[in-house]
Amino acid sequence: MDRRSFLKQASLVSGAAAASTLAAPAIAQNKRTLRMVTTWPKNFPGLGTAAQKLADNITAMTDGRLTVKLYSAGELVPAFECFDAVSTGSADLYHGAEYYWQGKHKAFNFFATVPMGLTASEMDAWMYHGGGQQLWDELAGKFNIKAFMAGNTGVQMGGWFTKEINAVDDLKGLKIRMPGLGGEVLRRLGASAVSLPGGEVFPSLQSGAIDATEWVGPWNDLAFGFYKITKFYYYPGFHEPGTAMSCGFNLDVFNSLSAADQAIVQQACKAATADAYAEFNANNGRALNTLLTKHGVQLKKFPDEVFDAIAKAADEVVAEVAAEDEFTGRVLESFSAARKELAGWGSIADQTYALYRNRAMGLARDV
Amino acid sequence: MDRRSFLKQASLVSGAAAASTLAAPAIAQNKRTLRMVTTWPKNFPGLGTAAQKLADNITAMTDGRLTVKLYSAGELVPAFECFDAVSTGSADLYHGAEYYWQGKHKAFNFFATVPMGLTASEMDAWMYHGGGQQLWDELAGKFNIKAFMAGNTGVQMGGWFTKEINAVDDLKGLKIRMPGLGGEVLRRLGASAVSLPGGEVFPSLQSGAIDATEWVGPWNDLAFGFYKITKFYYYPGFHEPGTAMSCGFNLDVFNSLSAADQAIVQQACKAATADAYAEFNANNGRALNTLLTKHGVQLKKFPDEVFDAIAKAADEVVAEVAAEDEFTGRVLESFSAARKELAGWGSIADQTYALYRNRAMGLARDV
Repeated sequence: MDRRSFLKQASLVSGAAAASTLAAPAIAQNKRTLRMVTTWPKNFPGLGTAAQKLADNITAMTDGRLTVKLYSAGELVPAFECFDAVSTGSADLYHGAEYYWQGKHKAFNFFATVPMGLTASEMDAWMYHGGGQQLWDELAGKFNIKAFMAGNTGVQMGGWFTKEINAVDDLKGLKIRMPGLGGEVLRRLGASAVSLPGGEVFPSLQSGAIDATEWVGPWNDLAFGFYKITKFYYYPGFHEPGTAMSCGFNLDVFNSLSAADQAIVQQACKAATADAYAEFNANNGRALNTLLTKHGVQLKKFPDEVFDAIAKAADEVVAEVAAEDEFTGRVLESFSAARKELAGWGSIADQTYALYRNRAMGLARDV
Repeated sequence: MDRRSFLKQASLVSGAAAASTLAAPAIAQNKRTLRMVTTWPKNFPGLGTAAQKLADNITAMTDGRLTVKLYSAGELVPAFECFDAVSTGSADLYHGAEYYWQGKHKAFNFFATVPMGLTASEMDAWMYHGGGQQLWDELAGKFNIKAFMAGNTGVQMGGWFTKEINAVDDLKGLKIRMPGLGGEVLRRLGASAVSLPGGEVFPSLQSGAIDATEWVGPWNDLAFGFYKITKFYYYPGFHEPGTAMSCGFNLDVFNSLSAADQAIVQQACKAATADAYAEFNANNGRALNTLLTKHGVQLKKFPDEVFDAIAKAADEVVAEVAAEDEFTGRVLESFSAARKELAGWGSIADQTYALYRNRAMGLARDV
């Protein structure tokens, strides 16, 4: 509380200063350090690094007027307490993914990703030009937070399986590491889906305590070394088709920023969204190559009937989540309408173009 | 020349001011108006509007320290003279698309789009994390320009045809409006491809002077009213699979900016890339819906053998362009390597996911 009243005071100073011509000492006084807490390990490739780049960019763009100091998961608060820390003002902003806050409100899932949800490009269209951001503002505002997308992993892989999946029945009794709504979808189909912290995933798969695990995509999975345990690498993923990272500001802190600094934050976050997705794609392309050519990994595609059963279960799980309250229902309505329109366009645009080009030029891995 | 030495002087002032504590009057003196020339008509949807938003964002982020004033095509210089104007310093920056400068150097095509080239997402990966920007810097630097991507239209539609295309032979003698390398590809297959200014496209198609025309995509095409002339709307487009817009600064002007303002420009351009592509996708989805349900438009897919013949011809045309000089050869090498890796990943990631999801949930237009 002390910190928040300090910030409110600071904001008055800042507002008054911006309205008049700045005197030299005011500029020095006006420098602020903002504490960014994150849900990621320090410099975790693609995620922790995206947070660090965003922090550095805001610092550079404001010439240090706002110096964003990053605290990795556990440094200031544990990963999943970032939201509360920012909501109450004990930190100024977070970088994370909204589904981590689903305990606060189920609707947060839609602003990260849901099973059978939007791709990264579709997510951008919904958030920036389809009403998504407005709904998010309405939700986050209730928690005293203003949040923006600030990265995207792209579609995540189906995962590493020690057994082949040839029919829906093969999911029955399957012990798989898959947290969140994706895990719930597989439970509906008879799998035993569990959440495991990062450090326990590899030994559990190795010992046979679990039969399968999803992680992220080729870039992160190669580094983790799952190919040493099994060669069956399944696609397409269904559980996280384009996971948005997010940057959430304490609302009082955000409102205390000048209009220029608010614009800087907003544009830096939008640039981070594009940059992270590009980085994941570039590195996933390279890493997939390495996995297939150097480590003998075999790409396996979920059979149509398996994917269709998963899609049906996912639709039910997501609908049940949305039925819990009026607001989440509105979010799903907007989300589903956007998905329908964007899929209608994408299916004759990027998707068919890529399919045709790759076939004609022999570029596809999917044959 | 007068203007350039003025700018150099201004930059010395700016550098000195940034290094010391700013006195109040220095801030007022330090405000600069930058002249942005563009290749687009004023507020042309998706293109002119992207330029205006970028100009406004830079102005807002710098609190008017850099006020970017936009001149639409023909206001200060004609569209295709933007490059020379910025290169020589008679304007400070441009917003356009690099293929307009192919008369200066063929390699510029690759930094906008080429037939059978990269999708918007692939373009981001190549430019931001695959060496594309470095090659562009090398090329643009020779013309005293520093350029960034600043928008993307996504894949453009194959076009409006008054005759059906059922075989490669149907392209023979076809009079089609398609400028640039795409037109050259169709000429190889016997078509008579012509360039027409925007204002002549509609009457030419209506009178039968041409049999077909490409324009952009559903959003722009709906506004243009092509559906009033013909109902055959072909996909997938091959000629512009993800056209990047670009923002090029006079290099002396860019170098005269403070590190903070350079960072602002760079991030604002990256944000513009994401924003424009999202806007095109959102609006194309809606407009396609309207074209199909309200105006009786019929989606037609190029037959496999036609698309494959186009792909083969495109590969030849692009290879010939690249063979003209050593530098363009290096660009194609980097571009092709990126395309191979990104297509390998995309074909099992976003592409297969979208294909499977759309089938399972009945979302596809492409059946």
